[in-house]
Amino acid sequence: MKNPNNVLLCGFEAFDGEQLNPSWLVAERVAQENLAEKEGAFAVNAVQLPCEFDRSLIVLTEAIERHQPSLVLCLGQAGGRPDISVERIGINCMDAPIADNAGSQPIDSAVIEHAEAAFFSTLPIKAIVQSLRDEGIPASVSNSAGTYVCNQVLYGVLQYLARQDLSDVRAGFIHLPYLPEQALSHRGAASMSLDVMVKAIRLGLRVAIDTQKDIRLEAGQSH
Amino acid sequence: MKNPNNVLLCGFEAFDGEQLNPSWLVAERVAQENLAEKEGAFAVNAVQLPCEFDRSLIVLTEAIERHQPSLVLCLGQAGGRPDISVERIGINCMDAPIADNAGSQPIDSAVIEHAEAAFFSTLPIKAIVQSLRDEGIPASVSNSAGTYVCNQVLYGVLQYLARQDLSDVRAGFIHLPYLPEQALSHRGAASMSLDVMVKAIRLGLRVAIDTQKDIRLEAGQSH
Amino acid sequence: MKNPNNVLLCGFEAFDGEQLNPSWLVAERVAQENLAEKEGAFAVNAVQLPCEFDRSLIVLTEAIERHQPSLVLCLGQAGGRPDISVERIGINCMDAPIADNAGSQPIDSAVIEHAEAAFFSTLPIKAIVQSLRDEGIPASVSNSAGTYVCNQVLYGVLQYLARQDLSDVRAGFIHLPYLPEQALSHRGAASMSLDVMVKAIRLGLRVAIDTQKDIRLEAGQSH
Amino acid sequence: MKNPNNVLLCGFEAFDGEQLNPSWLVAERVAQENLAEKEGAFAVNAVQLPCEFDRSLIVLTEAIERHQPSLVLCLGQAGGRPDISVERIGINCMDAPIADNAGSQPIDSAVIEHAEAAFFSTLPIKAIVQSLRDEGIPASVSNSAGTYVCNQVLYGVLQYLARQDLSDVRAGFIHLPYLPEQALSHRGAASMSLDVMVKAIRLGLRVAIDTQKDIRLEAGQSH
Repeated sequence: MKNPNNVLLCGFEAFDGEQLNPSWLVAERVAQENLAEKEGAFAVNAVQLPCEFDRSLIVLTEAIERHQPSLVLCLGQAGGRPDISVERIGINCMDAPIADNAGSQPIDSAVIEHAEAAFFSTLPIKAIVQSLRDEGIPASVSNSAGTYVCNQVLYGVLQYLARQDLSDVRAGFIHLPYLPEQALSHRGAASMSLDVMVKAIRLGLRVAIDTQKDIRLEAGQSH
Repeated sequence: MKNPNNVLLCGFEAFDGEQLNPSWLVAERVAQENLAEKEGAFAVNAVQLPCEFDRSLIVLTEAIERHQPSLVLCLGQAGGRPDISVERIGINCMDAPIADNAGSQPIDSAVIEHAEAAFFSTLPIKAIVQSLRDEGIPASVSNSAGTYVCNQVLYGVLQYLARQDLSDVRAGFIHLPYLPEQALSHRGAASMSLDVMVKAIRLGLRVAIDTQKDIRLEAGQSH
Repeated sequence: MKNPNNVLLCGFEAFDGEQLNPSWLVAERVAQENLAEKEGAFAVNAVQLPCEFDRSLIVLTEAIERHQPSLVLCLGQAGGRPDISVERIGINCMDAPIADNAGSQPIDSAVIEHAEAAFFSTLPIKAIVQSLRDEGIPASVSNSAGTYVCNQVLYGVLQYLARQDLSDVRAGFIHLPYLPEQALSHRGAASMSLDVMVKAIRLGLRVAIDTQKDIRLEAGQSH
Repeated sequence: MKNPNNVLLCGFEAFDGEQLNPSWLVAERVAQENLAEKEGAFAVNAVQLPCEFDRSLIVLTEAIERHQPSLVLCLGQAGGRPDISVERIGINCMDAPIADNAGSQPIDSAVIEHAEAAFFSTLPIKAIVQSLRDEGIPASVSNSAGTYVCNQVLYGVLQYLARQDLSDVRAGFIHLPYLPEQALSHRGAASMSLDVMVKAIRLGLRVAIDTQKDIRLEAGQSH
């Protein structure tokens, strides 16, 4: 049912008072460049997700049904983080520190009631981190995607694929730093250029497609 | 089978080149003070856990069988964190950034093969955070206990209690900052006095015992 | 003219929306404890400075004239710093990031027009840092007291003593972290207990009085 | 005597175990691009400074005598800082946290014995910061260039120009973050792309040349 030639690459709309969201700029650019270069034999379909708990998973699952991708990579903004962080796990919890773009702010609700506590990303997260570092791009594994819409989407897509018996469709989440122009409003915050992020995600997609078995790499955290 | 009057309070031995571990100093002091003051109607049993993947859960589950506690609170050191952080979830993953005290360094192994991906703490984590803040002690909810022995213990105890059908025994994990004397060797790291940590854990235990249903408190993270 | 038995210990009133300022709480406590214990042969006179550019130096120099101290130690709050930081230098610049308590916000003005660009603290800053570390208290040398009232006071007192030919009166500045209860409102900020800060300043005063020639200690910064 | 058409742009060689130093890469690139584009009516002369206390100022002053610049801008690496930081002041102190490239590690020595305590940068630091921010590049004023070779060079050039009565030659220092490839070895450190840094320094030079009187901009620090 899935299409081995299709990648679904999601980014978010801006939220929290920002004028833009690097995750969407990156998704859009990667899709455009892929189209222009007819790179490889796969198509990158960029889809923008609303930063709304009530609609994010609806838009995402509709996109999956439409595009039948073999790979789903969702991108999000992690303002303040200094590097590309590849998420390890999505948890069944919504605990919003701020209201979403529709004004909703769930506290300690389940993403999916009575479902599993968590799902691990099915991407080769260590291989992605290693390949980025090999290209001089700071990258790490993150053990928490937070408890906001990003985590909801990560948990949601993994739970959806498990429930739909689409275990051959790989899915995961990568968090991006602020763009330099965003860091202006967050004194002391790290940032990363759009060019570097686009390069990172193009590389990450390629590795995600090509890697069958993840590599062994020390990238854990003591706490 | 469990004893409603018994609390099991675990701390870790020193690791990673440290001479001490605040989690054990705190556990010991809380147990001593509780004994001295005959506070309430419950006993605090302090048990030291080895910082060893192969032995930590054996020591912990033996202590549970011996003491038959109604509450298990594990403490650990989170060097660099500035506040008392109450963990939300333990995940089924061991990914050690450094070798443990026995020289073992698992990379991306399961804590328990073929078991659930994660378990949520069964402590009233928001009520604990709120009560600490009410007493002027910086505290927060953490969404990741890391991928080292601390997380192994958190996941391990929750999985054990679920498997043993001991769902009426509550369990969770609280991470502590460095002590001031430890921060000397980690320039720029935050620290917290032993007195403040002991006060925090005494209060946390009391809240964990007294609170049936957790409170609603905004304490999530956007990423 | 100066009194070898007198120490002037200054702290600031609260500013920037805070309810308290650790520097004043510490100054007050150190003076009280010193009085109670009749420690050594010197008196500690605690004076509160207003967080106002127009009045801080007036209050400070009046206190010097009144108490004729042989040592002037000013304390201030450095919210977010994790340790006791002993300032190396005061600069002839006021560049306020926020208005002071009187609503004044100078931008790039001189503390004293046509005066020297800077004065080095005349305290034995390295000996103070070493003695604190020896007692297990995190401490460091800071190379900037900022450009707000704290720096104005540090520069101002050193310039005043130089101009008055009171070079035998030593003077300097120590910045203190937030108290734990302040850190509640600054998520992620480090803090330090009042007890630890009081101990640190008592020790620092003793070292400042007893040390004739500062020690050699590596405590510089690459940037 | 000075040449109104000449800019001296200094960068440092690598130090502290790094393989490269962004300050030199940027200086070189800015000089090359300026030459290629014949931008404006001035020449940019890039000079590499040794990271050695004993030689840095010799090389720098020789370059000033050779090129007779009307503007001296020195660049340095500030590993860990997230933005372009324009230094406000150089202080008469060498206090090296690590040995320099020749093995020298002065502790609390003067840059120039019996000279002034400090000199303020004579660049329009606020105008530079504002112009960078206007272009979406994170930038700030720094109140300390540290106590290593960077500060020695900043103090040294300002003291030299004052002593030589070359007060019409403007001089200052800008610190640069790590490059992304450097941040790989400093987990958690911020970084900035070479392209962004080159753009920033080109812009900064232009502003430094064109601005007679610095602007009024809030960019101070409370501590």
